[in-house]
Amino acid sequence: MDAVSHDHDAPLMGRSLIGTSLTAELGDDERGFRAVDPSTGAELAPSFRCATEADVAEAGRLASAAFPPFAASSGRTRSAFLHRIAEELEARRDSIVARAHLETALPEARLSGELARTTNQLRMFAELVERDEWRDPRIDRALPERSPTPRPDIRSMRTAIGPVAVFGASNFPLAFSVAGGDTASALAAGCPVIVKAHPGHPGTSELVGRAIAAAARASELPEGTFSLLFDDGHDVGQRLVGSPDVKAVGFTGSRRGGEALMRRAAERPEPIPVYAEMGSVNPIFVLPRAASARATSIAEGLHGSVMLGVGQFCTNPGVVLVPRGDAGDRIVGELVERTETTPAGTMLNAQVCANYGRGIEELRRAGARPVARGLDAAETVTAGVAALWEVGLDEVHAEPGLLSEVFGPSTLVVRYDAVDDLLRFAEVMEGQLTATLHAEPDDLDAEPGLVDVLARRAGRVVMNGYPTGVEVTPAMVHGGPFPATSDGRATSVGTRAIERFTRLVAYQDVPDAFLPAPLRDG
Amino acid sequence: MDAVSHDHDAPLMGRSLIGTSLTAELGDDERGFRAVDPSTGAELAPSFRCATEADVAEAGRLASAAFPPFAASSGRTRSAFLHRIAEELEARRDSIVARAHLETALPEARLSGELARTTNQLRMFAELVERDEWRDPRIDRALPERSPTPRPDIRSMRTAIGPVAVFGASNFPLAFSVAGGDTASALAAGCPVIVKAHPGHPGTSELVGRAIAAAARASELPEGTFSLLFDDGHDVGQRLVGSPDVKAVGFTGSRRGGEALMRRAAERPEPIPVYAEMGSVNPIFVLPRAASARATSIAEGLHGSVMLGVGQFCTNPGVVLVPRGDAGDRIVGELVERTETTPAGTMLNAQVCANYGRGIEELRRAGARPVARGLDAAETVTAGVAALWEVGLDEVHAEPGLLSEVFGPSTLVVRYDAVDDLLRFAEVMEGQLTATLHAEPDDLDAEPGLVDVLARRAGRVVMNGYPTGVEVTPAMVHGGPFPATSDGRATSVGTRAIERFTRLVAYQDVPDAFLPAPLRDG
Repeated sequence: MDAVSHDHDAPLMGRSLIGTSLTAELGDDERGFRAVDPSTGAELAPSFRCATEADVAEAGRLASAAFPPFAASSGRTRSAFLHRIAEELEARRDSIVARAHLETALPEARLSGELARTTNQLRMFAELVERDEWRDPRIDRALPERSPTPRPDIRSMRTAIGPVAVFGASNFPLAFSVAGGDTASALAAGCPVIVKAHPGHPGTSELVGRAIAAAARASELPEGTFSLLFDDGHDVGQRLVGSPDVKAVGFTGSRRGGEALMRRAAERPEPIPVYAEMGSVNPIFVLPRAASARATSIAEGLHGSVMLGVGQFCTNPGVVLVPRGDAGDRIVGELVERTETTPAGTMLNAQVCANYGRGIEELRRAGARPVARGLDAAETVTAGVAALWEVGLDEVHAEPGLLSEVFGPSTLVVRYDAVDDLLRFAEVMEGQLTATLHAEPDDLDAEPGLVDVLARRAGRVVMNGYPTGVEVTPAMVHGGPFPATSDGRATSVGTRAIERFTRLVAYQDVPDAFLPAPLRDG
Repeated sequence: MDAVSHDHDAPLMGRSLIGTSLTAELGDDERGFRAVDPSTGAELAPSFRCATEADVAEAGRLASAAFPPFAASSGRTRSAFLHRIAEELEARRDSIVARAHLETALPEARLSGELARTTNQLRMFAELVERDEWRDPRIDRALPERSPTPRPDIRSMRTAIGPVAVFGASNFPLAFSVAGGDTASALAAGCPVIVKAHPGHPGTSELVGRAIAAAARASELPEGTFSLLFDDGHDVGQRLVGSPDVKAVGFTGSRRGGEALMRRAAERPEPIPVYAEMGSVNPIFVLPRAASARATSIAEGLHGSVMLGVGQFCTNPGVVLVPRGDAGDRIVGELVERTETTPAGTMLNAQVCANYGRGIEELRRAGARPVARGLDAAETVTAGVAALWEVGLDEVHAEPGLLSEVFGPSTLVVRYDAVDDLLRFAEVMEGQLTATLHAEPDDLDAEPGLVDVLARRAGRVVMNGYPTGVEVTPAMVHGGPFPATSDGRATSVGTRAIERFTRLVAYQDVPDAFLPAPLRDG
């Protein structure tokens, strides 16, 4: 096989990266696909060859071989590797941003910011693993004099779980894709990573994958530490999750996709953990006094959050609970006005756009009343037109389909009569990534239990803000009870994300020289 | 419904405890069962009424109602509750030990020690939750001056996951049953617990359940904090794991039972985590120099570990890898001699005894050669007769059935030629709770990677000791890769066991007064 080129300006090859090698070129009788410019529908060169069953097996074999030395490498080694990935990405910034813009229609400024977020994440984990606290090392020394039996020496820590399969997300071609948070946290833990690139941005994925491969080579890491596989169907993903070499899965995407991976992982002879972040409707609870005090600023902030990135965020607010009455009417009125003048944006790809259309239709069939529609756009073939809907809270209880996530610039206003009704709704709503409360001090004093209720149903409770914009800080939780994620115990953002790719191991009376470094004396 | 009696000397009622109430008495047309004295086969009074579908639903409803206040209770409150449970158990020690001896045939001294272990565990978690470190509280303060956007204040911690279903184990009627480690860690985290009692020791379970109910009442905790359900079949367990009120499961038992619960939990509309500790063969690797240096002491220690408690431990060594040649022959010879003079013990119950017989037969059919058999016992109807087997390592690779766990006083000696063969075996063996190495310093110097290999396949690596006897200390890991457990990320012993019953939650810009106490300023 050919070696991966480390020339920044090398043209895109359209071939999967398996360790330090490129797979074969696309043959005449093989499956391939091209990226598409979502604003024109035009195909972009080159063609990407879909990875074969043999490619998946080879990536797995190499990852398994790389696992023991990589897991045993020093934190300093992995830290330097992560720093190097960040540098390699920055060195390729212009070409990555330009290609990502072509493939996703996301603005270059946003993509440039997303690249900075990606390198920040890599460096956050690089700093984390320079010390061993993340391993939770524990030492219970022997008590040789204990009666009736002496107590042995017991030491334990977190250790890497094994090779991890990571699925790139459509909506974050950088920060939740090839070198995104899942990859960064898995590599930081000492787990080799096999990425299944998202078919919406294969060129971006190849450029980022080359940056990681270059960093792995510069860091003299084992060959199978990183691989990148292309496919525009489900075969490669299903094979990866079924591979005996793979020991955990990271995924950000749709509920349907995440649940398919959960099922596949649970059916294996050896079930493995799946960390699927599947999105949610991120309800916003506007309490009566807050509605009265600041209808305009709430409508403005909310509209901005709903429309951000053409609504293509997991944390997009899809449901807004607004009191009936004048103050609530003012909020809805302002939202209507803003929505009607919102220009359509180009969505990430034709599939996202088609799904948005279907979601809108399902909302309508479930009984949502359209109250505003944004401007159309003639100049793009994947236009996401803003949409605003309204229903009563009683209708939501009768028709839970109203609460299905619609990925795109749509939000459903739900009118309620009394705060007690809100509480009852919060108690029974599905698990959410976020739940947001707009409240004046008097609102909270009247319902002091509301924050607790929301904290039971969401991974993050936001006060007087908006859920879009997930800070990358040690305390961040980007998770939440099912179906927001497959596993509400975990977070995919923040330093705790590393814990997903670890298991616990104890050593009893093992001599110092044979202990892993974090558990040795001194 | 009648209230649970708090009189220590009240006779056994044979009725499930749902919160502070007893279920109905056993009706003529209802399912019930009795405990059996395993040494005589005689049934023991009273009859226990199997919990009905309505009982399971009521226990779930009460647990869900208890969850918010119990989860929000102070660590001090839950600590006092756990201490009180320990005291209530100690106050009932004599009756608990006497009934457990009748129901399981375990010696009273062992049961008394197990009760002490149980109260130690409760007190360990009581001390843990007096402070909030276990919650991993984190605070990332706001950066209002950050450009282009201010950073919000983000705080997060672990919080209780919800009501937990706990399944009592047959082989530890106290330490892994009604008030065992799963219950203690779940209650410590703030999760209400519904125990499905093991049908092998229902009377013991009722006595322990009453102690917990008395402690809950004395601690003025919500009614549904604890319930205890009886059933000698699978209905109650399956219903519990399927209940929308239940958010996590703790189980110690057979692989078949654990896998059934895993499947049920994965099929739910809202899948939930299952922590099933399913046992393993706990291989012992005797290296050549250790075999030469101390054949007799290894054989003695090993024999003691295999026969302990009639072999009825999850950590029982079921496979011993011994070098071919004189030193290995000496170990096997010593084991044969000791096995042939080992008296049969009474096993826990007729089912365990029948399964042991089947396991022995399967070993034989898989090609294990019997090399020694212990003494028979005429005076018990559930005799566990010691058994020693031998095969070559090549045979094990050809017939993995030789490595199936046989729960009881049986062990399989596997003879190997070269340490390289051992390494290859260790690389491919199934996940184990423990892996033990008997090695002289020269052995380890010759194979420095062996400890690492074992640490990849087991939850605990033991050096020059025996795996039976799991210390209850903060660093202990009683877990291991599938199929030793359903989830190798976790441990069911040691303070980290509390993490199983938690999820993460973050608060963004939430005012101090509405934050949970561990995240407030100061």
